Amino acid sequence: MSEESATQIAKAAKAAFEASQLIDASERIKALHLIKSELEALQPEIQEANKVDLEAAQREVEAGRLSSSLVKRLDLFKGDKWDAMLQGVMDVAALPDPTGNVSYASELDDNLELYRVSCPIGVLLVIFEARPEVVVNIAALAIKSGNAAILKGGKESIRTTALLSQAIRTALSKTQLPHDYIQTIQTREEVSSLLSQDRYIDLVIPRGSNSLVRHIQNNTRIPVMGHADGLCTVFLDESADEAKAVRIVVDSKTDYPAACNAAETLLVHEKLLTTLWPNVAKALLEAGVLLLCDTPSLSVLQNLPVSVPNLSTRVRPSKPEDYSTEHLSLTLSVLTVPSLSAAIRYINAHSSHHTDAIVTESQANATQFCRGVDSAGTYVNASTRFADGFRYGFGTEVGISTGRIHARGPVGLEGLCTYKYIMRSKDDKGHIVAEFGSGEGKKKFKHEKISASRLPF
Amino acid sequence: MSEESATQIAKAAKAAFEASQLIDASERIKALHLIKSELEALQPEIQEANKVDLEAAQREVEAGRLSSSLVKRLDLFKGDKWDAMLQGVMDVAALPDPTGNVSYASELDDNLELYRVSCPIGVLLVIFEARPEVVVNIAALAIKSGNAAILKGGKESIRTTALLSQAIRTALSKTQLPHDYIQTIQTREEVSSLLSQDRYIDLVIPRGSNSLVRHIQNNTRIPVMGHADGLCTVFLDESADEAKAVRIVVDSKTDYPAACNAAETLLVHEKLLTTLWPNVAKALLEAGVLLLCDTPSLSVLQNLPVSVPNLSTRVRPSKPEDYSTEHLSLTLSVLTVPSLSAAIRYINAHSSHHTDAIVTESQANATQFCRGVDSAGTYVNASTRFADGFRYGFGTEVGISTGRIHARGPVGLEGLCTYKYIMRSKDDKGHIVAEFGSGEGKKKFKHEKISASRLPF
Repeated sequence: MSEESATQIAKAAKAAFEASQLIDASERIKALHLIKSELEALQPEIQEANKVDLEAAQREVEAGRLSSSLVKRLDLFKGDKWDAMLQGVMDVAALPDPTGNVSYASELDDNLELYRVSCPIGVLLVIFEARPEVVVNIAALAIKSGNAAILKGGKESIRTTALLSQAIRTALSKTQLPHDYIQTIQTREEVSSLLSQDRYIDLVIPRGSNSLVRHIQNNTRIPVMGHADGLCTVFLDESADEAKAVRIVVDSKTDYPAACNAAETLLVHEKLLTTLWPNVAKALLEAGVLLLCDTPSLSVLQNLPVSVPNLSTRVRPSKPEDYSTEHLSLTLSVLTVPSLSAAIRYINAHSSHHTDAIVTESQANATQFCRGVDSAGTYVNASTRFADGFRYGFGTEVGISTGRIHARGPVGLEGLCTYKYIMRSKDDKGHIVAEFGSGEGKKKFKHEKISASRLPF
Repeated sequence: MSEESATQIAKAAKAAFEASQLIDASERIKALHLIKSELEALQPEIQEANKVDLEAAQREVEAGRLSSSLVKRLDLFKGDKWDAMLQGVMDVAALPDPTGNVSYASELDDNLELYRVSCPIGVLLVIFEARPEVVVNIAALAIKSGNAAILKGGKESIRTTALLSQAIRTALSKTQLPHDYIQTIQTREEVSSLLSQDRYIDLVIPRGSNSLVRHIQNNTRIPVMGHADGLCTVFLDESADEAKAVRIVVDSKTDYPAACNAAETLLVHEKLLTTLWPNVAKALLEAGVLLLCDTPSLSVLQNLPVSVPNLSTRVRPSKPEDYSTEHLSLTLSVLTVPSLSAAIRYINAHSSHHTDAIVTESQANATQFCRGVDSAGTYVNASTRFADGFRYGFGTEVGISTGRIHARGPVGLEGLCTYKYIMRSKDDKGHIVAEFGSGEGKKKFKHEKISASRLPF
């Protein structure tokens, strides 16, 4: 794509965003309902296109150019995926409007009101990989939050996403919303050109591998929201309860090892080495976890009875780099720490600031851990796997942010909004600054709180 | 400065930040009180250093290497500046703690609580120009909001800021806070090296010229918060009241023309050209404003009686570039527009998304303007000059953000904070994800709102 056509796409998106701001929010909900019906109407064609994408991908796998796990993610009609995607659009439609909410309201003077009101960010550029349903998910989130979006899916799902986009476009054309409100692009080259459009694009959301996220961060002046790593840690505090420790460590590691919120490192307080640790290790080994242990935690395991399953094959000494590796598999790095504060320091230095958990019976230690660990999520006696927009009650999410500017943690509709300040003078003469000040006859600001949850005009 | 010492400074700041998280917020307030006393104790030396800085700057002015307006800003003891600076520290100390506030709290399950709690961002790199008191202002804001900071002042105030920093450091050494909590650096080279420390520095806040802000944005991966331009617009709607129009336009332009929230462009609805516009123009001319007019607004003025002051000397035809120029002086670009929607489109395309105002008697038009104009502030019948942290009731500000990610508009303590999610299980067995789901015997999430404004543990 030429720089020129990238400018055109970005400019059209911004114009669509600006025009959409004057259209009632009910049109956005109408659009979501129409998207669902258009998708239903186009289902046979989409199913056929998805089949062709799958076959093409299968040939790539056979030629050794693609991983087979990717093919699974391409299949839009596996199990209840298609229905879940449609239901997701309805769920997003039913969520409360994230725009127009007042988070600060103050009467600055008689008849001078200030409101801070949530509003969309503007134009989103969303880049994701294999799963074609993400086009629909993200389009729904963008529309609901009032943002225009430019979407780029993986090249393996190109035929499927083309039809999904067509359904979205048809639906939009039946509303007052501009038809350029949601645009889809296909190639990496288009992405590169769009990354320079910081005049028109307000936020880039990459959903994919670490290398994709890093590449984007290094190649744009546009703010990027996305997590690069999910290096989550569970710390077994001196006062940890054994049953809780077993449950939480096993769940954090094994519930879904490929997820970014799965635990990759276990920190064991040294006082637990001969008490609680062997039983946690046994449970992990029974679950098929490979343990990469430091010397103290390893030597305890080497003295366990040989009847422990997997003991001889699934316990190995750790290497330094294991503690900065996102295993994304049934592998867990284990480190012994002498204290709570050492655990906090370790996590701040090594974790990816995603989600870290403590298992403890001490309220004081829980408080210290939650204050001291500088991550988007700090948990007490709960599995790191809870880090998720749905589980948090946000309905849905565009991802989990490990950045600390703007949205942090699971990003729902609220994370796709910013705010603006709206000021209204109801005074007969209007309000001017020159009347305020410290001199004689000058007015003072009132700064009186207004109770309002929505803008009154 | 070598890359190595930049790393050391940044690393020390991050370590100081992390250590500070475990220290009670009352220490931060104590630090602010101590900073005030240390500054008072060091006043004679600071006054002397400031004198030397001023003399050196004066010589630079005489040699034509420095603008004389800068010298004025260097003087820390002019009028009540010194006392105002000390009072500012006390004001910040007295503001409510922006950290530890709960903005979302939900019971996800029996005994499983989720809290979204405000917390500091981490390490701030703040770069500013001439005025030495900014060191103290920003240090106070950083300390109050719990952020570590690296501060870089202008080289012209180097002797003054060195002593101000010394007072801050001495004060910190009398608290439990780490003494590297606030660090000061002196040269542009140090800034360049620090801009690559994205591992340790979380946010860059440039306060200075547009070229400084742009340079920084182009040279770092660290998020940058700062406004580049203040191109504010006032639109006189068809239904504008004449007295309000005169007051608001004159105040927006003349109250403090060098400020970023001063109006630079006036949009006049074409129906007002022969009614309201001549009187607005007369008032502006009386105030000494230079009017750069498009053809319609110009020809009306050319037919005014010659008795209008400045008419022959202070009215000129505009050039296209005048509409994208931040005059920062008594100069105003004037453009005729055919409609409200044309005004909105013009502002979205030309303004810097800072603050834009409408003068109108129509509530419907006010609503359209506030919805349609994509700026941090949209005002109805109020001067653009109200865009200011103090006037908004934030106590103080670090600047006005025209970005739309994170903080927007005047940035007070809240804008220096992010949040983290804290989860606590009070269940006897702790909470794991595997128990939740749609299958038989699986738990469902409750997502029941908890009413809490501060973290209960």
